[in-house]
Amino acid sequence: MSYSQKGDSVFISSIYKEALTQGESYQNLKVLCKNIGNRLSGSAAAQMAVEWGKNTLENYGFDTVYLQKVMVPHWDRGTTERAWIQADKEQISLNILALGGSVSTNGLLKGEVIEFSSLSELKKSNTAQVQGKIVFINQHMDDSDINTFKAYGGCSAIRLKGAIEAGKLGAKAVIIRSLGLAIDDHPHTGVMTYDSSVKKIPAAALSTQDADLLSTKLKSFKLKLALEMNCRTLEDEPSYNVIAEIRGKKAPKEIITFGGHLDSWDTGEGAHDDGAGVVHCMEALRILKKLNYVPNHTLRVVLFMNEENGNMGGKGYASFSATKGEKQIAALESDRGGFAPRGFACDGSSNQVKFLESLAHFFKPYELHVFEKGYGGVDIGPLKNQFPGIPLFGFVPDSQRYFDFHHTPNDIFENVNKRELELGAAAISSFIYLLDINL
Amino acid sequence: MSYSQKGDSVFISSIYKEALTQGESYQNLKVLCKNIGNRLSGSAAAQMAVEWGKNTLENYGFDTVYLQKVMVPHWDRGTTERAWIQADKEQISLNILALGGSVSTNGLLKGEVIEFSSLSELKKSNTAQVQGKIVFINQHMDDSDINTFKAYGGCSAIRLKGAIEAGKLGAKAVIIRSLGLAIDDHPHTGVMTYDSSVKKIPAAALSTQDADLLSTKLKSFKLKLALEMNCRTLEDEPSYNVIAEIRGKKAPKEIITFGGHLDSWDTGEGAHDDGAGVVHCMEALRILKKLNYVPNHTLRVVLFMNEENGNMGGKGYASFSATKGEKQIAALESDRGGFAPRGFACDGSSNQVKFLESLAHFFKPYELHVFEKGYGGVDIGPLKNQFPGIPLFGFVPDSQRYFDFHHTPNDIFENVNKRELELGAAAISSFIYLLDINL
Repeated sequence: MSYSQKGDSVFISSIYKEALTQGESYQNLKVLCKNIGNRLSGSAAAQMAVEWGKNTLENYGFDTVYLQKVMVPHWDRGTTERAWIQADKEQISLNILALGGSVSTNGLLKGEVIEFSSLSELKKSNTAQVQGKIVFINQHMDDSDINTFKAYGGCSAIRLKGAIEAGKLGAKAVIIRSLGLAIDDHPHTGVMTYDSSVKKIPAAALSTQDADLLSTKLKSFKLKLALEMNCRTLEDEPSYNVIAEIRGKKAPKEIITFGGHLDSWDTGEGAHDDGAGVVHCMEALRILKKLNYVPNHTLRVVLFMNEENGNMGGKGYASFSATKGEKQIAALESDRGGFAPRGFACDGSSNQVKFLESLAHFFKPYELHVFEKGYGGVDIGPLKNQFPGIPLFGFVPDSQRYFDFHHTPNDIFENVNKRELELGAAAISSFIYLLDINL
Repeated sequence: MSYSQKGDSVFISSIYKEALTQGESYQNLKVLCKNIGNRLSGSAAAQMAVEWGKNTLENYGFDTVYLQKVMVPHWDRGTTERAWIQADKEQISLNILALGGSVSTNGLLKGEVIEFSSLSELKKSNTAQVQGKIVFINQHMDDSDINTFKAYGGCSAIRLKGAIEAGKLGAKAVIIRSLGLAIDDHPHTGVMTYDSSVKKIPAAALSTQDADLLSTKLKSFKLKLALEMNCRTLEDEPSYNVIAEIRGKKAPKEIITFGGHLDSWDTGEGAHDDGAGVVHCMEALRILKKLNYVPNHTLRVVLFMNEENGNMGGKGYASFSATKGEKQIAALESDRGGFAPRGFACDGSSNQVKFLESLAHFFKPYELHVFEKGYGGVDIGPLKNQFPGIPLFGFVPDSQRYFDFHHTPNDIFENVNKRELELGAAAISSFIYLLDINL
């Protein structure tokens, strides 16, 4: 190890010490979760979060803090949805959440339930079977896959496309098994889509426990399900990315962007998704400033708006930056929760992946070991088109618990561990430092 | 990779699949935690756990299941302890737990509190300062240390030796800051010791939050603390290690031992410490049997009794085994909680550590990356003297959350994640398989 590398290791150790002994990420997350709570794009809470983000970053005394306006969708859940089945002589309430973007049921809707074990099984069905019924897609995430994000990716089409495929066959509504690995009572919401050529039908997610229950009951009885959802889509609203930066000394026009998304689904508190990513990145910059680090390039934190249902913040940010003639040299996103860090992934060329691998040894004392090709993040994704060749990095925490919380009422502050969160902030701060001195 | 290594990888993948999709570890842990609960050596619950362990292992149909008698200490907490301070005109209750092995207060004890920031500061004090007072040792675990077990080791002397050092200076009682990293309301108990030449004084742990509170109050006032503890040490009791094995085909007299400890502290449910280790190892053997694996050596699970306050099970096991002329060729322990696996440590020669390192590649697909020299475990420790040269292995899960639960009322089933637990069982089962085919 060269002298400068030794110096880097010492500096990284001071970053970790600050994060673990004087850290502010956990307290920031508490305020975001408990004072503001969930914050879907277009809601009053999302606006409150924008103002909180700006105030907090201003109080840290960075060189610049500003808002970047974007127009975002505004979907509103309305009165909490209700659903029940009549099974034999028993009335059973179901734990259900409308999917984001769904139309309402226009009052109480009732229909016979028809179950499919997967989206592809539904696609093989026909109008005669499905017409006028409520389609139940009971596809399971693959719990034998060690990579929970891969298991999620392999199953998420039921949420994204379920209403289209069921609508094509004349279904009244569609309900899906929640995208989660735990068997519990928390339904998982998330974005869904329609196709302009297919009638829009209401779409909702059942908790995994109730999906199992419904499936069991359907083996014995024909069942009617009653469903009321009062959601609606309102006019688009103005909202904001929140941006803070420390200007670079050597190359102020070259920008390293890192961030998480400020919006969340409208249930729980958006603690892991993505309050953790937001406070990770705020803390990463705070620590560098606290340690009097003077960066070569401009280090910019972005709290993106609207990752969950439109990515208008991510798209807007990339396009504003290109329009202003900025030079984006690297970007990082934290949007996989506040769990113990495992490493970083690189969406980039083989040389960029090699560069990432060359950083691994700095993180060995901190138990990080994943330094490989992989995904960056939704918010930073649009930078790729505007700045061809830019390496995108994704922060990779342990993924085993993520889908117990993702998009559920259970994604609350209490389910984030202080040390795990702080270790994430320290890893990201160290990584941004290493990018800055090496690029 | 050779053909046989490919075959090993395929077999390991079937172990993981069984653990994650048909696993029984989580349900076993639920029964141990919820039907039996905490189970200190000598208690009725410990006997219930012995019988549960034997029944469960017998139901799995292993070749042999038997009990191994050991005499264990029997310390009883009695009525829950109470403590409060009178600060100015305010009466403040403190969250407190007697340390295991402590004498009682013999009714309500009151005394002025004197605070020391560490055990070494206490040692530098004198009788004039301490005589007749209640000593409060407010030493913090080092939260900047990434290795939480190292931070624990660096601080645990306040619990083990605090009563001796305070007693030497004539203190009435000693209370310590809990050995934990989180700031919360859960006091951490654990074993303490006396010295026959020093008067025995009562010893208890305060929650970290109340330690901070007490320390703050002491900056403004002289404080009296009232304390009542009703604990007592009874006669030693007979208890048991629970043992199950599948006999080896090639070398039945050569034994690979693996286990966790069945006893726990008498608060919470002993979920991470060490219910997790118990069900990990039961599951590891169950999976090998389920997959019709015929071992070369005898594979033996031991549910050790009395790790927490005497290690009579571990000592007894090693000495019984030596007396019987058994040949122990390797041993593994799981006693660091049910968190996401990180790897394995080897307490052995440099060649044995090299052998461990040579297994790392099998575990890369499962995100394990720690394969290095390190600690085995308390229960298997005595094998080292009886079987010189035996390699001892410790299962290493992620350690960041462990000391939020360890020895507290918060160590309950709900704080163990199903997938993380199952991944631990799969890692251990795979490791035992690799030991069996390579030794």
